Amino acid sequence: MPQFPSHAVIREVGLRDGLQSIQTVLPTAFKKEWIARAYAAGLREIEVGSFVPARLLPQLADTAELLAYARTLPGLRASVLVPNLRGAENAIAQGAHLMIVPLSASHQHSLANLRKTPDEVVAEVARIRAARDAAGNRTLIEGGVGTAFGCTLQGNVAPSEVLRLLQALLDAGADRVSIADTVGYANPRQVHELLEQALKIAGDRFCCGHFHDTRGLALANVYAALSLGVARFDASLAGIGGCPHAPGASGNAATEDLAFMLAGMQVDTGIDLPQLLDLRAQVAVWLTGETTHGTLWRAGLPKNFSGTTV
Amino acid sequence: MPQFPSHAVIREVGLRDGLQSIQTVLPTAFKKEWIARAYAAGLREIEVGSFVPARLLPQLADTAELLAYARTLPGLRASVLVPNLRGAENAIAQGAHLMIVPLSASHQHSLANLRKTPDEVVAEVARIRAARDAAGNRTLIEGGVGTAFGCTLQGNVAPSEVLRLLQALLDAGADRVSIADTVGYANPRQVHELLEQALKIAGDRFCCGHFHDTRGLALANVYAALSLGVARFDASLAGIGGCPHAPGASGNAATEDLAFMLAGMQVDTGIDLPQLLDLRAQVAVWLTGETTHGTLWRAGLPKNFSGTTV
Repeated sequence: MPQFPSHAVIREVGLRDGLQSIQTVLPTAFKKEWIARAYAAGLREIEVGSFVPARLLPQLADTAELLAYARTLPGLRASVLVPNLRGAENAIAQGAHLMIVPLSASHQHSLANLRKTPDEVVAEVARIRAARDAAGNRTLIEGGVGTAFGCTLQGNVAPSEVLRLLQALLDAGADRVSIADTVGYANPRQVHELLEQALKIAGDRFCCGHFHDTRGLALANVYAALSLGVARFDASLAGIGGCPHAPGASGNAATEDLAFMLAGMQVDTGIDLPQLLDLRAQVAVWLTGETTHGTLWRAGLPKNFSGTTV
Repeated sequence: MPQFPSHAVIREVGLRDGLQSIQTVLPTAFKKEWIARAYAAGLREIEVGSFVPARLLPQLADTAELLAYARTLPGLRASVLVPNLRGAENAIAQGAHLMIVPLSASHQHSLANLRKTPDEVVAEVARIRAARDAAGNRTLIEGGVGTAFGCTLQGNVAPSEVLRLLQALLDAGADRVSIADTVGYANPRQVHELLEQALKIAGDRFCCGHFHDTRGLALANVYAALSLGVARFDASLAGIGGCPHAPGASGNAATEDLAFMLAGMQVDTGIDLPQLLDLRAQVAVWLTGETTHGTLWRAGLPKNFSGTTV
């Protein structure tokens, strides 16, 4: 029997990875309600947005306001995505608990999306670390290696390159690293193989798995990671997040489905599932017209379901 | 690293478990095309229908004709579901390769759906075995234990009861046994725990896992079973099969998503995925108006996908 962790953290990324991928610009008041209700349902880590220029992602233009709001909720760890030093300076100045610096292990994807090579991102992380340390601030730096299992532009991404970049990020001063299957190419065997090696490199500084459900394997991939002891996963309510290359395709792992799986497995997340499903229903209303995902919301909780244990 | 099987069989059950759950009555000609094209795509085990009275399941009234057709395809193993001795006599007379006798481990579900207690079904299997042996026929008998992870009527189903019934089925003369999560309650930890015990009882006579995707966990559950060496899984194209208690909810594991997962994991199924996706598109057209499921069909195969290996 694999040794599953007794506790795990679901990091809600719908407000960032979800909303950045869809057309609807959700009003700030609704986003605050999303944060408040997710918090009330037991979520304690939320990625509230991204410090990128508002002209690039108008959907996330209110990130600073959301971060300030999230910081008022006791025990909530609010993270933001920062693509560069400038974004990081904002995150530091505004007291984010965590900033996630995305790096794409696919050279082609990196150039296309970030306009930098992977090693240029590593160098930027070193500058971000210097800025953070100079500010005497506690904002943690997470280096997130995306397209870690393949890429829509380049096809294969060598695991050795992913592992090299994880080490490089740690050497450059990232406090922790994570891995993302940005385009939904991963299968659970690949996840097992790559994470086994990643954990050898990063140990407990390996902090999170981010699996897209583009081809239906997100929860199987989470299971493979869990069986290695990984205990933090990104997910978005209603599975929003899609893939720009495949209209209508599934997005992130759905927070509610993942929370259900973990509860059934007796991995405590602190989440109240009925409350989470209520919020999921509200999010679906706010995003009327957008494609939402997930399965639990249709079927409902099993008759034998009780709280966080079965 | 878990030891995954090098080969696995996907048994297409859309023509039985899928079609029995939906309103559309698919014309026999379309069903034959489904069988022929599934065969051409590499599937070698297909459940073609059920020998039940046509007044109960008019959708499956052409089972005998489909079985006769399937028997003309070299190397195709055609199975049918038989709820009782009378159905089994049909399956034997008409040369099915395999007949699956469903048993519900949930006492309440058994009474409601089969009008027998689980032990009465075991006794029926003994009569079926006697009939098969008396006929000098090779039709294999599979005892399929459903609601093995819980039940919409009864709630919990004790694993000890599932294991007892597996043993009883083997003792009564079933050639092999399988387990079904009929209502989509299972999580992969439960699957691991129960199948580990089931394999101790049945060894290589444990032949198949049948996981519904009602709450999104079918492929994670398959992965857990695979990691124990289970190498046959039921699935239905476009994930049809639904749950009568939850309109619109997901049905069986989608054949195409499962085939994709196995291919990526380098578990050979002999399936040509582009051909299978073409058939899936055809099935969705035939079933216009019905809810279909699965994710791969929207997103398409990854850029780095090649045949049965990644």
